[in-house]
Amino acid sequence: MKFNQYSRAHATDRTKVAELQGLGFLNQLVTDQADLNELWLSFLYKAFPQAQSKSSLNGYLHNLLASPTQDVLAYLEKNTVNATAFYTVGLQLLGFTCGDDFDVAEPLTAMKNFNLLYHQEITTVTDLVGAWYDLLNTRGKMGQILLDLLATEGYFLPLYDLPISQKPLLFNGKSQPVFDTDALIREVVYIESSLDTDQDGQRDLLKAEILRPKDTNDGLKVPAVYTASPYNQGTNDEAGDKMMHHVDQPLTHKKPNDLEYADIEYHQPATDLPEPRPVNGTTQQAEETFGREAAYTLNDYLAARGFAIVYAAGIGTRGSQGVRTTGSPAETASTIAIIEWLAGNRRAFTNQTDNIEIKAWWCNGSVAMTGRSYLGTLATAAATTGVAGLKTIISEAAISSWYDYYRDNGLVVAPGGFPGEDADVLAEECFSRQLDGGDYYRIKPFFDRYLAQITAGQDRTTGDYNTFWDARNYLKDVANVKCDVLMVHGVNDWNVKPRNVYQLYRALADVPVTKKLILHQGQHIYINAFRSLDFSEMVNLWLTNKLYGVQNEADEILPAVLVQDNVAPESWRSYPDWDQTATRLTQLYLSPDRLQPEAVTTAAPVTFSDHLPADTFAEARQDYDAWRNHLLADEETAYRDTRLIFKTATADTDYLLRGAAHLQVKVASSLDHGMLSVMLVDYGTAKRLGATPQILGRKAISSGYHWREDDLNEFQLTKATPFKMITKGHINLQNRTANYKTDELVAGQFYDVDFDLQPTFYHVPAGHQLGLVIYATDMEMTVRGNEDLTYSLDLNDCQLTLTTSAY
Amino acid sequence: MKFNQYSRAHATDRTKVAELQGLGFLNQLVTDQADLNELWLSFLYKAFPQAQSKSSLNGYLHNLLASPTQDVLAYLEKNTVNATAFYTVGLQLLGFTCGDDFDVAEPLTAMKNFNLLYHQEITTVTDLVGAWYDLLNTRGKMGQILLDLLATEGYFLPLYDLPISQKPLLFNGKSQPVFDTDALIREVVYIESSLDTDQDGQRDLLKAEILRPKDTNDGLKVPAVYTASPYNQGTNDEAGDKMMHHVDQPLTHKKPNDLEYADIEYHQPATDLPEPRPVNGTTQQAEETFGREAAYTLNDYLAARGFAIVYAAGIGTRGSQGVRTTGSPAETASTIAIIEWLAGNRRAFTNQTDNIEIKAWWCNGSVAMTGRSYLGTLATAAATTGVAGLKTIISEAAISSWYDYYRDNGLVVAPGGFPGEDADVLAEECFSRQLDGGDYYRIKPFFDRYLAQITAGQDRTTGDYNTFWDARNYLKDVANVKCDVLMVHGVNDWNVKPRNVYQLYRALADVPVTKKLILHQGQHIYINAFRSLDFSEMVNLWLTNKLYGVQNEADEILPAVLVQDNVAPESWRSYPDWDQTATRLTQLYLSPDRLQPEAVTTAAPVTFSDHLPADTFAEARQDYDAWRNHLLADEETAYRDTRLIFKTATADTDYLLRGAAHLQVKVASSLDHGMLSVMLVDYGTAKRLGATPQILGRKAISSGYHWREDDLNEFQLTKATPFKMITKGHINLQNRTANYKTDELVAGQFYDVDFDLQPTFYHVPAGHQLGLVIYATDMEMTVRGNEDLTYSLDLNDCQLTLTTSAY
Repeated sequence: MKFNQYSRAHATDRTKVAELQGLGFLNQLVTDQADLNELWLSFLYKAFPQAQSKSSLNGYLHNLLASPTQDVLAYLEKNTVNATAFYTVGLQLLGFTCGDDFDVAEPLTAMKNFNLLYHQEITTVTDLVGAWYDLLNTRGKMGQILLDLLATEGYFLPLYDLPISQKPLLFNGKSQPVFDTDALIREVVYIESSLDTDQDGQRDLLKAEILRPKDTNDGLKVPAVYTASPYNQGTNDEAGDKMMHHVDQPLTHKKPNDLEYADIEYHQPATDLPEPRPVNGTTQQAEETFGREAAYTLNDYLAARGFAIVYAAGIGTRGSQGVRTTGSPAETASTIAIIEWLAGNRRAFTNQTDNIEIKAWWCNGSVAMTGRSYLGTLATAAATTGVAGLKTIISEAAISSWYDYYRDNGLVVAPGGFPGEDADVLAEECFSRQLDGGDYYRIKPFFDRYLAQITAGQDRTTGDYNTFWDARNYLKDVANVKCDVLMVHGVNDWNVKPRNVYQLYRALADVPVTKKLILHQGQHIYINAFRSLDFSEMVNLWLTNKLYGVQNEADEILPAVLVQDNVAPESWRSYPDWDQTATRLTQLYLSPDRLQPEAVTTAAPVTFSDHLPADTFAEARQDYDAWRNHLLADEETAYRDTRLIFKTATADTDYLLRGAAHLQVKVASSLDHGMLSVMLVDYGTAKRLGATPQILGRKAISSGYHWREDDLNEFQLTKATPFKMITKGHINLQNRTANYKTDELVAGQFYDVDFDLQPTFYHVPAGHQLGLVIYATDMEMTVRGNEDLTYSLDLNDCQLTLTTSAY
Repeated sequence: MKFNQYSRAHATDRTKVAELQGLGFLNQLVTDQADLNELWLSFLYKAFPQAQSKSSLNGYLHNLLASPTQDVLAYLEKNTVNATAFYTVGLQLLGFTCGDDFDVAEPLTAMKNFNLLYHQEITTVTDLVGAWYDLLNTRGKMGQILLDLLATEGYFLPLYDLPISQKPLLFNGKSQPVFDTDALIREVVYIESSLDTDQDGQRDLLKAEILRPKDTNDGLKVPAVYTASPYNQGTNDEAGDKMMHHVDQPLTHKKPNDLEYADIEYHQPATDLPEPRPVNGTTQQAEETFGREAAYTLNDYLAARGFAIVYAAGIGTRGSQGVRTTGSPAETASTIAIIEWLAGNRRAFTNQTDNIEIKAWWCNGSVAMTGRSYLGTLATAAATTGVAGLKTIISEAAISSWYDYYRDNGLVVAPGGFPGEDADVLAEECFSRQLDGGDYYRIKPFFDRYLAQITAGQDRTTGDYNTFWDARNYLKDVANVKCDVLMVHGVNDWNVKPRNVYQLYRALADVPVTKKLILHQGQHIYINAFRSLDFSEMVNLWLTNKLYGVQNEADEILPAVLVQDNVAPESWRSYPDWDQTATRLTQLYLSPDRLQPEAVTTAAPVTFSDHLPADTFAEARQDYDAWRNHLLADEETAYRDTRLIFKTATADTDYLLRGAAHLQVKVASSLDHGMLSVMLVDYGTAKRLGATPQILGRKAISSGYHWREDDLNEFQLTKATPFKMITKGHINLQNRTANYKTDELVAGQFYDVDFDLQPTFYHVPAGHQLGLVIYATDMEMTVRGNEDLTYSLDLNDCQLTLTTSAY
């Protein structure tokens, strides 16, 4: 077990005393002359809010060992608290079991091994106060800090009634759960956008679901954490499945053209917009509520800590008007309409018909956006508008350009595991107005026509970047970003591929806002319930600063780039940037089977086929993991002739691969069309982190008191594997110049092709080999024609360029 | 999608009116002359508790189709409600999507295909009231009845304040969620048992956690649903893992004996019991609470419906005194101590030291027990004491005799997948006093000695039934059962094997209580969140009858034996009993490769080895599924020589295998020891139900309003497989006479051996073959010596007897 805490704020001794007083751990009269044992005992008595009598409390203390042979009460009869006794007890309070988890004789060693902060000496009142303060802020065995564990037992119940002048209540720069989640106010409003995407002559109304503390009714103004989720009013999964495109078909020759970017650049057309609705009255009282929202558990955590939570699904979703457009500027406008209302710059109504206006009168005007995948994507989209009121986004696994989600270098390249999905499928899937029979009946004819336009615009025939995709490229507007940005992405995310976050990260470099990046070892997952990382607390620190304006040094405390190690579990390291400081370019040359630092001459081209026997092909289509494992294996498999493998010598020392590898090859196709796919692979038998985190405790993470729960999880080492795919890349051989321009391709003719692989951040351990695997059809991403097609590589003109640094 | 509802109570038209009035759907003045459309509209307006204004409500109605081209409001302008319009809307209220889930033109067909109750004609007020009543009681797409869906949206909020004289509020024989779960009172008491298992000179105090409605503070007496779970104060998983016994060792010869049952029969010894604690005072107010109990979601559902929920972990668990004994009479006494307190027949205190008594003054004295596995086992144990106050148990996947959990016919046979586990390991695992460092320090020396006694008593050397196991055989006391019994078990449960429920079911036959049995297709799972079965509502009906004494005909309505079909998904059938009515015995004879209705003479014995090549053995030890699949496969595998397969001809018609198959063989071992394992197998390529249910919706099942949630799931067909194991059996060749008596075994000598396989209830479809697979070492259950040992069968004396019936 190893813990990593990045959310600790600096606190002076004076601050510590004041905050412990605010929390009720210290009374106002504590002095340096206080009796140490009495003080410690007073802390411990407050550590069991479930016990409501002295006898009951003593029962708990009687069960805590303070030394290998004495419980706390026995210990205190003859001894004075010191660091050893303090942490013996402290570890138990944090949920560690004597003996099993730590040696009672060596609590400081355990604190050190767990990577938990501890004080070497506790001999004065100041020491003890400081140590208790830090212990409250220390993560326990089940992935929550002690203060949050106490919250689960009801510690903050008496503080629900604090006057609003004392809320939010801060501890170590973070807002505490003094908000009664049983009493949250849940209300629905309909925000009038400046859109009429369903062309019904009325501006599209957008449904928003709000959860806010009841203290707002007493005058407290709170910030809003807003998640824009097209999924959260329901989805049309079956209809989406039916629309999936057929991918078992060959790539075809594309007619060459001379397009330049200006030819396909998107320009926002002028549109006629219906007049706003008249206002027939105003109210402070909503007239619709909801039972259960589709929630993100990070928001649940924040809801107990004084942040209003707002969910909106946007145009074309159940309860809202308009249509789904998958990433278009209209969708972005629909996304920020909610923020504009929260910030007081847009109108909302209590229902869709009466035109009674309702303001976000309870909101302090500061908004953050949260969420993963499409949700994080919309946060990114919103940020690139520079909308007023949006103070920060926490964008997780977010798309930054939809072309990078559904295409790559002139190829249709699906999100991993979803071949056949495309922008139109996603629009259909999220068009949850379909779930309301009456509403759908009225809108269906228009939406069917609209959907056909998306299908045409996305252009699966060429796979080229075009006006449709340019309209869906948020990177163009990064200069507009005015809010601070916290990006989170999995380096193993083959759904929203790492290029999306990399390009955003790079584009933000020159934008004068604070940006932070967390790269984890997950696929397309949330990281707020890892045991090894205090992500929720980091977010708390961040939002307490950005939304409540508390000067807690969040910008300075949180690392610029935080990366989870792929070799050792539970290990995180911080870096100044992704791939710039202290990195170097490494050039590798290809020769048969080898990747080497010097060029060697190879007489004949090497070749591989893109054709599989029918039964092997059928198998590969069904089980992508098996296909990948066979493709990468050293052994003879039925896939052997469909790929080339080039490996480096074994590494002498550990090193890091950072950013995007660049591949240059001279290649010929036996037909007039062709594609290359490549993987960078870590070869070397080793126990590696599992593909998905393992659940350590079901419902083990509590967001507050009698409030929502989450499963605690962590990546753990699995049994040894011979290799692991690091990253991938794809290109259509007819897009050698640009993704928007089609080049000629003559069968049998060699062409120079070069392209970036998906960026990564990978720790290659000593003794391993780096492998480059070149193939064509990617079973889980590209079309799969299983054509009788051969590719030839002239290795004399093939090079791989890596960005590396020492580990 | 197919729904099965067994919890519907009969209701007269008059009852329907009265109950709808009680729920607020009808006012007191409704007459036969009421306008049908107005009445329907009044119902629909109440179906959206989230909408709090007429405009908002109209918005919802505007989105409901009442015909293929009209929403409800448009429809009502020119039409009168009829069955078609009623169910078009009804299906949408139940969460079905127009088009995707049902054809709007044919709602009655959809109701029929979904197996949902519907009215053919709705032309009178009585029809409409009846149809609405039944619709509220009809299961929707996400596995909850409409009334429960409304509860999730807050329908019952205004009824929280009903006077206690009107609580519980009944609908269709079931108690409704009119209890405020935000206001549940959570308290801890310590019950004084008549035990001193830790021999500290004080009676063992037992911690109980209680959740009760706040209405009890106003005088409402409520029944208690009690779950005895040794796991729910935590477990020592690592310590338990370390204690797992080594199973990679050969079976050994046992010294024959002449034991009779009387020689090993357990008799409760007389014990000196310390005096009860003096009472220093009394109170109605507990002084300890808790944040989050380890809950069973069925109990959560009941907590919102007027049942107090009680959890206790028993002797030797965290917060309690005593030691873990794994199934002993002391454990049973500890289990029923809680019931005795709830029924007013035992004392409890507010803490462990002050001796202040607290009574279960809020309890009506009626108690039910719930829970699966060890939890259900303790419910069974409690029932066999006949303890006063216990009105019913719902025992799921329960052990009825611990010998049948850890042993079989003179063999150590582990729960499937846990070779090496035994009674001592389980005692260690559940001894959660170990989690309290101070407490464990004091008790460890005693518990270590006690654990050694369990290790000795369980006797892994012989595997024989002995006094230790006889003390842990609840079947001996079934005649004492005074409560009604609802048994639930998976026919694929190889952890707690089906014999456990079968023996209890059979033993209860002559006991004058009501008993019900549900056999599902799961392994060791809960079934309260299946979409296809209304288990929670059945339990509600059952407990409203047993604990609140409501005359709802639960005994008559619930089927005697309900069995999930293993061929068709979402199909359940009821039967009068497990294997008696309308069944017949089928005798099958063994000849090489065949199971046939007539005896044939086979010249030479057939043989199989128990030895595997080292690498195959290593593989088999690691992956039980792979081992089983290889063993049962028709193809040549490395396991081929380690088993014999005998198959019937393909079945002409579907039939059912019921109860326990009986096998008689003449067998010889090449050494002086030996065992037989057998499997009964369904051979025939078919899509079968998956081994575990698939999650249809995460957190999709709501237990009330802003209350606990559960994942909705269902067994679904997976891709075709060539066979499926139906059931298993094991025997030590030295236990031919009885499991408590050791017979001689001479190498090479043939012996007649006969034994029962684990009972089953299996639908063999036409075209399939029934297979009998005979082998020795069972990788996931027995010791695994991988000895060079050969077994010979004289097929002329081998017969399999099946109990079957037509399907």
